[in-house]
Amino acid sequence: MSGGSDEQQIRELVSTWMAATKAGDIEKVLSLMSDDAVFLMPGRPAMDKAGFAAAARAQAAKDAPSFDGTSEIQEIKVLGDWAFMWVKLSVIMTPAAGGRSMKREGYTLSILRKQNGRWRLVRDANMLAPVPG
Amino acid sequence: MSGGSDEQQIRELVSTWMAATKAGDIEKVLSLMSDDAVFLMPGRPAMDKAGFAAAARAQAAKDAPSFDGTSEIQEIKVLGDWAFMWVKLSVIMTPAAGGRSMKREGYTLSILRKQNGRWRLVRDANMLAPVPG
Repeated sequence: MSGGSDEQQIRELVSTWMAATKAGDIEKVLSLMSDDAVFLMPGRPAMDKAGFAAAARAQAAKDAPSFDGTSEIQEIKVLGDWAFMWVKLSVIMTPAAGGRSMKREGYTLSILRKQNGRWRLVRDANMLAPVPG
Repeated sequence: MSGGSDEQQIRELVSTWMAATKAGDIEKVLSLMSDDAVFLMPGRPAMDKAGFAAAARAQAAKDAPSFDGTSEIQEIKVLGDWAFMWVKLSVIMTPAAGGRSMKREGYTLSILRKQNGRWRLVRDANMLAPVPG
């Protein structure tokens, strides 16, 4: 992990996450979360790390859509070895088969924890919603 | 505020919030959040405390729907004067005019802060989604 303040390290985690998602590098994304990570989103049961990995691999195997997106960090609050942050995200997913792109926008609220000197995502609330058009 | 552990006080905050919402006691609900509280939900801009109050009052003035609901706290983690928690919520809203009830279920992920010895909600991610039927 690079040096820099905790806030800077958390900003790097977000940009690494976005870049790894775009590159389809599932292992890299998994390395950015704790083993006990929990993902919450509307209309679905809570998902653990194994569930996240399975869903990401199933999607990559099926149609390997391409992702692109932007993230605007709204707030990072460091509390010792814990932190929370909320981010405004915009994600465009384009099917490999060449169908219509789908845009989703919204917020995430995340809890992070510093373990062995590295920040990792431990809880994540995903409130992205489809954007018409 | 009553005694008891921080976790117990946070549990009481949740049950007070649910009871005040059910009773239509908007001032009570507002007293359970910090002045800089932020509410995040899908498909809408982030909402501050004034926005929360205005939305609650507008809804009460319009048709005063009745609320009922259950909350199952999944995790509370206290970090000094800060805490996070996620909750599984089920809420039934019935229009005063007697239309069909609407059920919404899902998770919230919240950040809380102890200020002047009292826990208050400071950030809230709401992932409730309509339940068909």
